[in-house]
Amino acid sequence: MRRLKIVFEPYGRRLEIEEGESILEAARRASIGLRSECGGLGLCGRCRVIVDDSKAVSPPTEAERRLLTPEELEKGVRLACQTRIHGDLVINIPPESRVEAQRIEVKGLRRAVELEPMIWKLPLKLERPKLGDRRGDLERVLEALGGGVDVEWEAVKELPEALREGDWTITAILWGSTLIAVESGDTTENIYGLAVDIGTSKIVVQLVDLSTGEVVSTGAVENPQAIHGEDIMARMTYAMESPENLEELQRLAAEGVNEALKEALSRVDVDAASIYEAVVACNTAIHHLFLGLDPRHLAVSPFTPVVRRGFKARARDLGLNINRGAWVYTPPVVAGFVGGDAVADVIATGLHEAEELSLLIDVGTNTEVILGDGEELWASSCASGPAFEGAHIKDGMRAVRGAIERIWIDEDLEVRYETIGGVKPLGLCGSAVIDAVAEMLRRGILNPHGRLTAEGRRIKPGAPAEFIIAWSGETATGRDITLTERDINEIQLAKAAIYTASKILMERMGVEPSDIERLYIAGAFGSYLNPENAKEIGMIPDVPSERIRVVGNTAVEGARLMLLSKRLRDEAERVAEEMKYVELSNDPDFLNLYPRALYLGRFT
Amino acid sequence: MRRLKIVFEPYGRRLEIEEGESILEAARRASIGLRSECGGLGLCGRCRVIVDDSKAVSPPTEAERRLLTPEELEKGVRLACQTRIHGDLVINIPPESRVEAQRIEVKGLRRAVELEPMIWKLPLKLERPKLGDRRGDLERVLEALGGGVDVEWEAVKELPEALREGDWTITAILWGSTLIAVESGDTTENIYGLAVDIGTSKIVVQLVDLSTGEVVSTGAVENPQAIHGEDIMARMTYAMESPENLEELQRLAAEGVNEALKEALSRVDVDAASIYEAVVACNTAIHHLFLGLDPRHLAVSPFTPVVRRGFKARARDLGLNINRGAWVYTPPVVAGFVGGDAVADVIATGLHEAEELSLLIDVGTNTEVILGDGEELWASSCASGPAFEGAHIKDGMRAVRGAIERIWIDEDLEVRYETIGGVKPLGLCGSAVIDAVAEMLRRGILNPHGRLTAEGRRIKPGAPAEFIIAWSGETATGRDITLTERDINEIQLAKAAIYTASKILMERMGVEPSDIERLYIAGAFGSYLNPENAKEIGMIPDVPSERIRVVGNTAVEGARLMLLSKRLRDEAERVAEEMKYVELSNDPDFLNLYPRALYLGRFT
Ligand code: FES
Ligand code: FES
Repeated sequence: MRRLKIVFEPYGRRLEIEEGESILEAARRASIGLRSECGGLGLCGRCRVIVDDSKAVSPPTEAERRLLTPEELEKGVRLACQTRIHGDLVINIPPESRVEAQRIEVKGLRRAVELEPMIWKLPLKLERPKLGDRRGDLERVLEALGGGVDVEWEAVKELPEALREGDWTITAILWGSTLIAVESGDTTENIYGLAVDIGTSKIVVQLVDLSTGEVVSTGAVENPQAIHGEDIMARMTYAMESPENLEELQRLAAEGVNEALKEALSRVDVDAASIYEAVVACNTAIHHLFLGLDPRHLAVSPFTPVVRRGFKARARDLGLNINRGAWVYTPPVVAGFVGGDAVADVIATGLHEAEELSLLIDVGTNTEVILGDGEELWASSCASGPAFEGAHIKDGMRAVRGAIERIWIDEDLEVRYETIGGVKPLGLCGSAVIDAVAEMLRRGILNPHGRLTAEGRRIKPGAPAEFIIAWSGETATGRDITLTERDINEIQLAKAAIYTASKILMERMGVEPSDIERLYIAGAFGSYLNPENAKEIGMIPDVPSERIRVVGNTAVEGARLMLLSKRLRDEAERVAEEMKYVELSNDPDFLNLYPRALYLGRFT
Repeated sequence: MRRLKIVFEPYGRRLEIEEGESILEAARRASIGLRSECGGLGLCGRCRVIVDDSKAVSPPTEAERRLLTPEELEKGVRLACQTRIHGDLVINIPPESRVEAQRIEVKGLRRAVELEPMIWKLPLKLERPKLGDRRGDLERVLEALGGGVDVEWEAVKELPEALREGDWTITAILWGSTLIAVESGDTTENIYGLAVDIGTSKIVVQLVDLSTGEVVSTGAVENPQAIHGEDIMARMTYAMESPENLEELQRLAAEGVNEALKEALSRVDVDAASIYEAVVACNTAIHHLFLGLDPRHLAVSPFTPVVRRGFKARARDLGLNINRGAWVYTPPVVAGFVGGDAVADVIATGLHEAEELSLLIDVGTNTEVILGDGEELWASSCASGPAFEGAHIKDGMRAVRGAIERIWIDEDLEVRYETIGGVKPLGLCGSAVIDAVAEMLRRGILNPHGRLTAEGRRIKPGAPAEFIIAWSGETATGRDITLTERDINEIQLAKAAIYTASKILMERMGVEPSDIERLYIAGAFGSYLNPENAKEIGMIPDVPSERIRVVGNTAVEGARLMLLSKRLRDEAERVAEEMKYVELSNDPDFLNLYPRALYLGRFT
């Protein structure tokens, strides 16, 4: 086989290739972002390049003769996916063929991402059929598209009306090279995707404009699966009892997503039928339940998932109310207890490419902990309970309007607080609970075991003793808002799980908390968490504040990035394969470390 | 590009090819039946060939290293789909790699067909997972299969149980290169398909063993769509009224198939879940209704179908009760009024390859007429009504037990008859009606206008007059079985439609009835029809009897052949594209010919 030398201009990138390779393949190997919406099938015509020697490449294919004018061919314009290289060659990539990296804003982060969704739209102007023309509606569309297109039944059902309503102008919606839907007229402006995070307690969706990468609306609901258990083990047990139970949990997850979507759609003028793909990140157990896959083998050694790789299913089969031809992509999972949400966390923060030792803690009912330095990547997941989301706390609530979100305690033990929306308080959200515990520790009225050790007008003795944060006269409920010793105990359990998971990963990598150069706090807290207080109670390692980033929901952000970029899905696949993980329930260190971790105090 | 010379042994077939072509592609162009169950993806390992010069071909691929031993590679054994040709070459096809042509029996015909279904099974012995092995169940299966396999969600749902129940031996069921189902243990023996003919009045299914090509059971029901109209126009009108009506007709068609299948399964020990594909032949209108496609544009000029080509949809989406991962294939249609049933007729009889001038008449409520001489192929379809199926005839009935199937009338006008099952008569089936009309013509008691012109004890005058075929004392009903002038009128209308359609095709091809060298009578009659009598009344052209073959239901037989052979699907595609057709409703000759065609008498 002959080896050939090629150069990509204007990059000046040189490459040795094997005779017969296509220009698109070569460009990929040279890491040159060349547009290829149709995946190299000669359909989209976006992969145009200019070659300096027509004799060094294969003759124009049918697709090229369809998509390029004779004058263009004359000038050496070719489709990279169609053109095979047979001699040394200089290839020029014109600006319109380059995939431009967009800066995508992720809370507290800015990732440069090439906008390359799986979904693309192509407007087609067709000829009206005449008598004697034997082509059916579908043949007419497929001829305009060119060969190699797979067709979904749903798309065909809509075809006759779409064609005639739009007076023979339609828009083809393709997932790679599969025709999944058609719409009358030119609807290329309207192209949306859905990024979804199904958490143990909460489902969050982002409605994403696939043409810009922007989030145009969001929605969130409680995960309706919770009626069969707040923790994930209870739900797995329920699912294992019968196939009907599994189906029910599948349906509940889908309904939750539909509800959150409804909320998102209520605020904008977008039709659910304009959403053509959803990317759904969740932990491994919820991943199985959402896909209707039996989770029973996740729970027992050797903790085998049914599907590990990124997977696609039809939205309609799963019960999502988006376009009837839409697909759902679930990112790869890592292991029984480290799921696609952890992978999404990594993709959102770029942790796998980090040049500094970085720790990510994605706090939720299950907390994902990920540690990496650009070489190694370690992950673990622990059941931290819903205390940080305001549940299992006497006066706890979600971080919504009326929740106390920040608390300060003076030296004379008087309390100042702020509520979300600046209204009379209804209860305490997670960040306020952490503030309260940290401040009580600072003021010396709480010992490391979680006992209230002082007296005063704000302290109600008893079993459990309580600390009054807001007097009944100030609250919207007319009752005192307090934090009880039992609440504090919940916080201890939760932070101990996170502490232990983090500690074990650090031990595996042979690093100390003080070595951590970047600490990401992700999860439901949003921007409310005061990292100083989280450090005070030992929930996160004690690193200087400037190293800490509170980054919000990185699972849904990672899902969004995968919605926007095929390349990031490949990267997710690599991350999932290479990530090392610790199954905590199986780890001897866990039982050693956990009791100590219950102590309230700094994590050094 | 270099041109190379290759030879296929033991055939001695020589071919010029372009450098870089694969051996499988070359074999296809040389019309050599080389096994390729996986469609050339390097999965099945069935396309083994021996090359005489390893340096003239590409190096072994990963798939070849997985599926061939080093010794085999050493000896020049290669997978044809994986190996590209780079020099002159002699390629030996060992016997086990040849697709053997099976003789498939079609009533009255024997077609040699290569057994090459889309569906194939591969038993896999997998390793039990160990702790630390990160592969999920699916990854384990896909690794054993090799790359390039698409996976259906349904298959994955069944995976965990199948793997563990079968102690890590499973059978993968593939449609080409798509994994559509899995079963525990080795189930390669159990592999079935369903051939279906959805007629306007009747639905017929054949349960087919895909490993032998044999029909193991059959079933038939009335088409339940008939509640919305006996003729196809009424159903189309109903479907056009609302999307719900269209959905209802879709569902009714599927339910009919399910009912017929239930009957077929009741007689054999086969599970519906062992049926992995259905091929469904029907006319264009029913094709659209069965696929849930809006038929409104079929009915008006330019008579555009939604889909013309062969199409596949999921059995589950269409509501067929076969394996949940199964596919349904509908053969290509020719035009608005000539459907996949006509194409199936052609495939079953090999009419497109005929060396003699051949006419096929597929009699039903809609009758397909096809004329071909191996060069040209013409088709038409006419609404002939259900009279030949025993409907709209006073004492008419289907050809089931108790039906009079043959009738002779003596010179003294006495009647002899035979019933199906040799029991007391219940009524008249189509062939008996034709017999009666023909015999009355012969005996001179019926004029060409369809009026009874004699008197006698069997003739009851009146309006309409009746001819008594069986006296009340002989019948199972205790009432006379008669044929009325009104019945005879129905037969005139029906035979006139068929006559006219046949005549117009013959005129288009410039041939006379006497030129016809082969006449196939297909349809519901089965073997009961007496062709001499059909000639007597002018329903079929007056050709010598030895040229006539009564061939039964060729639509379902054609569907079966397409179920068994991928190649025949390609052929069907070609037939549908090349077949010329006449839209009778649109044809000026039709109105000229039809009135004359109502006369009873020979068609010369
Ligand atoms: S990648 Fe779409 S035409 Fe080349
Ligand atoms: S065709 Fe299946 S391996 Fe070659």
